[in-house]
Amino acid sequence: MKSFASDNYAGVHPALMEALMRANSGHARAYGADEWTQRCLPLFEQAFGKLAGLHFVFNGTGANVLSLAACTRSFEAVLCADISHIYSDEGSAPENFTGCRMFPVLSDEQGKLQPAALEERIARKGDPHYAQPRVLSLTQATEYGTVYTPEELRCLAERAHSKGLWLHMDGARFFNAAASLHCSPSALSSDCGVDILSLGGAKLGMMYGEAVLVFHPELEKNLRFQHKQVMQLASKTRFIAAQFEALLQDELWRSLAQHAHSMAQRLAERLSEIPEVERSQPVQANAVFARIPKAWNAPLMEAFPFYIWDESSNEARLMCAWDTQPEDIEAFVAQMKALSKEL
Amino acid sequence: MKSFASDNYAGVHPALMEALMRANSGHARAYGADEWTQRCLPLFEQAFGKLAGLHFVFNGTGANVLSLAACTRSFEAVLCADISHIYSDEGSAPENFTGCRMFPVLSDEQGKLQPAALEERIARKGDPHYAQPRVLSLTQATEYGTVYTPEELRCLAERAHSKGLWLHMDGARFFNAAASLHCSPSALSSDCGVDILSLGGAKLGMMYGEAVLVFHPELEKNLRFQHKQVMQLASKTRFIAAQFEALLQDELWRSLAQHAHSMAQRLAERLSEIPEVERSQPVQANAVFARIPKAWNAPLMEAFPFYIWDESSNEARLMCAWDTQPEDIEAFVAQMKALSKEL
Amino acid sequence: MKSFASDNYAGVHPALMEALMRANSGHARAYGADEWTQRCLPLFEQAFGKLAGLHFVFNGTGANVLSLAACTRSFEAVLCADISHIYSDEGSAPENFTGCRMFPVLSDEQGKLQPAALEERIARKGDPHYAQPRVLSLTQATEYGTVYTPEELRCLAERAHSKGLWLHMDGARFFNAAASLHCSPSALSSDCGVDILSLGGAKLGMMYGEAVLVFHPELEKNLRFQHKQVMQLASKTRFIAAQFEALLQDELWRSLAQHAHSMAQRLAERLSEIPEVERSQPVQANAVFARIPKAWNAPLMEAFPFYIWDESSNEARLMCAWDTQPEDIEAFVAQMKALSKEL
Amino acid sequence: MKSFASDNYAGVHPALMEALMRANSGHARAYGADEWTQRCLPLFEQAFGKLAGLHFVFNGTGANVLSLAACTRSFEAVLCADISHIYSDEGSAPENFTGCRMFPVLSDEQGKLQPAALEERIARKGDPHYAQPRVLSLTQATEYGTVYTPEELRCLAERAHSKGLWLHMDGARFFNAAASLHCSPSALSSDCGVDILSLGGAKLGMMYGEAVLVFHPELEKNLRFQHKQVMQLASKTRFIAAQFEALLQDELWRSLAQHAHSMAQRLAERLSEIPEVERSQPVQANAVFARIPKAWNAPLMEAFPFYIWDESSNEARLMCAWDTQPEDIEAFVAQMKALSKEL
Repeated sequence: MKSFASDNYAGVHPALMEALMRANSGHARAYGADEWTQRCLPLFEQAFGKLAGLHFVFNGTGANVLSLAACTRSFEAVLCADISHIYSDEGSAPENFTGCRMFPVLSDEQGKLQPAALEERIARKGDPHYAQPRVLSLTQATEYGTVYTPEELRCLAERAHSKGLWLHMDGARFFNAAASLHCSPSALSSDCGVDILSLGGAKLGMMYGEAVLVFHPELEKNLRFQHKQVMQLASKTRFIAAQFEALLQDELWRSLAQHAHSMAQRLAERLSEIPEVERSQPVQANAVFARIPKAWNAPLMEAFPFYIWDESSNEARLMCAWDTQPEDIEAFVAQMKALSKEL
Repeated sequence: MKSFASDNYAGVHPALMEALMRANSGHARAYGADEWTQRCLPLFEQAFGKLAGLHFVFNGTGANVLSLAACTRSFEAVLCADISHIYSDEGSAPENFTGCRMFPVLSDEQGKLQPAALEERIARKGDPHYAQPRVLSLTQATEYGTVYTPEELRCLAERAHSKGLWLHMDGARFFNAAASLHCSPSALSSDCGVDILSLGGAKLGMMYGEAVLVFHPELEKNLRFQHKQVMQLASKTRFIAAQFEALLQDELWRSLAQHAHSMAQRLAERLSEIPEVERSQPVQANAVFARIPKAWNAPLMEAFPFYIWDESSNEARLMCAWDTQPEDIEAFVAQMKALSKEL
Repeated sequence: MKSFASDNYAGVHPALMEALMRANSGHARAYGADEWTQRCLPLFEQAFGKLAGLHFVFNGTGANVLSLAACTRSFEAVLCADISHIYSDEGSAPENFTGCRMFPVLSDEQGKLQPAALEERIARKGDPHYAQPRVLSLTQATEYGTVYTPEELRCLAERAHSKGLWLHMDGARFFNAAASLHCSPSALSSDCGVDILSLGGAKLGMMYGEAVLVFHPELEKNLRFQHKQVMQLASKTRFIAAQFEALLQDELWRSLAQHAHSMAQRLAERLSEIPEVERSQPVQANAVFARIPKAWNAPLMEAFPFYIWDESSNEARLMCAWDTQPEDIEAFVAQMKALSKEL
Repeated sequence: MKSFASDNYAGVHPALMEALMRANSGHARAYGADEWTQRCLPLFEQAFGKLAGLHFVFNGTGANVLSLAACTRSFEAVLCADISHIYSDEGSAPENFTGCRMFPVLSDEQGKLQPAALEERIARKGDPHYAQPRVLSLTQATEYGTVYTPEELRCLAERAHSKGLWLHMDGARFFNAAASLHCSPSALSSDCGVDILSLGGAKLGMMYGEAVLVFHPELEKNLRFQHKQVMQLASKTRFIAAQFEALLQDELWRSLAQHAHSMAQRLAERLSEIPEVERSQPVQANAVFARIPKAWNAPLMEAFPFYIWDESSNEARLMCAWDTQPEDIEAFVAQMKALSKEL
């Protein structure tokens, strides 16, 4: 099957599979005391700048919840976009683990948070009747496939820090953002004031595994205890580390993310040839959002599964992955054209 | 490195690695809606009997906490052995996720729970001032490498059920127990009244992945929601499923577990030749427990890491894995003999 | 001091103080097994209709959190007005105790929820990635001092029930609503489909004490355990019961609430004589909302403390209590008039 | 009714009832900003020494859970006596609110913790797989009615502090201990290294209300937020404060506690006249523990309810309260004597 449903429908990139096989040699210390994990740190620091901590976890929800736990006490609150993954697609996992309030903040048309939108919630400091905002969580690239520029990030970080909030970044597709912005990872994280980052791997060709990158030393203080408590400490950590090692070496991540980006651009271009299709978001990472006739859903999805993001306008989300091929796009578009009455 | 530290120091069995590679073909639906996951159910049912639910998770702590969550409400309590992994090696993850009390029950000399030991805690039913016991959690094989016989399990299950408690089994080394008892998996689980089972994979040659097997339909009711909330729902579930599929086919698990068991037996025999070494537990799975001179720890561990289970008596835990080789044992024993003054 | 800050600034009504003294005779069984508590049930049922359970608690936050706990599992969600007390004034107590998501729903201009506003959140039923809405929580009277009519309540209850949601009512000022609507308590609760009610006492002349009234038997199932766990089970429950007994006898509550309502009406009328003051909400219970010149805050609050509800428009919330006197209102209005440039 | 069931069966002492009436004058700021609450601080400090914080709460469970929350993060653990109230009579409220592990430690024959008993649990520091002990919780007077001497407390405090643990004291009957030891409150708390104290009021003649006394400034840091979150912040706090004020003035607490102590001593003496009765604990506060013939339970309890603490030996717990009268004791003992075959 090929699909535009999610970049996590894709399998494992050959180079990462090979890294897994290479790491499968003899015994290794468990729970992150292995040499692969140790070897990763300099590679990460080369890309992201100085780290106060680096923790490998199993999945994105785990990375996000662990990051939020590092930033908060249970009487505090998280500000995040109403459409963010941690608010809309991780159940109440953040609340159940941290005890905190999740305050949804209205995002702009492109799914990004604007500093002004935070004002209403960053309020009543010191009032015990009000869950105290303590961390701002952004998604990069956003759930709409758009990206925050370094300047936008710096501006949000300043706003957050000036109010005593930490800045967390949900980077499930961080590498996609860095590739399309032609940035170094550090230019979109440590340089902008990000305090803690959930870095995704599974959506960029890893079998499983994400990382929590801690930039501010204060957030590292209890992290190894929270890492275990959040049930995300892998016994055979070396296999997560080995994949990240391969992803970071020679910036493999960049070529994979760049490829997914080009595919999304190509898909967007081809869609513009179909009059019934209306693009609804700029293509800044590896997603294409477009409103399509509802009647097309069933026939299209049969061959190429994808999700309807907004049912009211029948807005489809079409994700390209590291393994999306031009011929997948052509086949998909051809099917659309066959459905189009006007072509 | 080779070690006797833990069976999770071992790598991935070649057949499972191959299964991973085979599963790496094209796109697959995420979060368990893939065909590998679907295909696993009959294989599991063939081995374990009729299942009310089957859920793949990342690690043992996740499997245990999810299982306990399925059995309890937050005002209830878990009875478990004082030495059990969920009590002594998973931090306060069970409490933090479920809100429940963990009541430790004194295990017998071989690390097993005896029905009589439960009496004191199964008390004050209906009294809201007392955390209400709701689930009994056993480990099979135990933390001491001993095993419960089917008869012992049935007896504990009857006791638990008669008092309104569910029976949870932490089966991180369930396959090891089944192999050494020459049992079918069902003979040690569904046939004995186990209601929910955490089934380990990582300690028997999987890269990662465990499963929660639900036998009683009532426990399945909310499990898919709790599965996500406990942060253990993998996007690329196919890769866990594929490994379990390979492990179950032709009872590969049995030959791997049997091998580890024979290695442990061999190690135990060879240790009996060394006068300073005093065996402290019978070998019923893949662990050997023995008291050794404290001065030996450092030199021995340098070549073959292992853990001191009880510092007061310098009791060592020596784990054999699917990949432990006779020559590892010989080398280890040779080193011991070199240290022995009496040989 | 006299104030318009909150009805919880007022003291204890003499009849309730007398009830406390009468209840202070000899020993009584603890934790609600006393005769006062037993005696209350028929009085409550006479007013509210058949109850599945009645539980006395210490305060409103306790009543609300206990009620929500009765309705939910940790993977579920609560729908409530964005301005509701449980969302804006109880910290993250609901999340921390229940683990649930709190979904804020935009209320209408008068602080009431409209059925249509619920649509967006009552979604994705059965999707484990989404915190599952399980209870709708309304405040009666609302935080704006407005009231839901029985018809409005029935309509919301039908909407909630048809979607599998329970209906919880935060009735911190329930009696105020019943008095101004000239309703029986049952006409605003059991008759309308309310499943569980937090009934306030402290804001209507009690020293302390609220009650959780359970209408639907399913919600009573675990409540006595949750009651203790939420730390709201009083050892000397008789003193809460005795106050409620006195409040219910001969509908004392109605005369106290009616008095507070008349005082609010009188205050509203007198405010309309002052040109700088702009009333912003209808007076339907015991609150008056009005925008006043910002410069008046300090001098007015010195004599009669009150709260500014909305700082941007300098909207004041003026609460009348069971003990507010006409002369308090006259003195307050006189001070306003002295401040008015136009009078 | 008169009883020996619990000191919380007793009503309100007249002086405290009067204090309640006096406090019932006009309006007062809510949530602890009232003048009664402010006035209490110097009185408390006079008795207990310098305080970093003083927080009034509703009940003992609330006081204990709030204190433990002040001392811990969710990955940490509490050490407490196996028979302690927080372990055996508060459900899983501590776990549910704090997320922490509760480690039960075997108490000695008199229900007291000995430093050596802590050793086993104060272990594995820094190991994330093990819930990290962070606070030692003692009960003074103990659940067996015995008391820790200042020297014993100092010794335990030193042990706790040297291992990085806070010392919490559950002082539900703290005043009883101070009275029988002829101590100042500070001699049993701040002087001994207690870091945070749950101070009971309800068991010594208050209608309701306990206090959390914070001695170590670090524990005060987040307490006002946790106070609200634990649902124990009273709107009309003045009524709790007024009772404590009356209890502290002229050491009223001492005369009430001394009275209860003398009554317990008298009861113990009279019991020694009955051959079938075997005293099982020294009388060091207001409890008498004695094994009595099982057949006596029903007839005795009819007139004077009390609890059987240990069913296996039919050990009764007989509590004396501030209002226990010599004639109550005589009547109870007379009934026993009538049941005695040997008299």
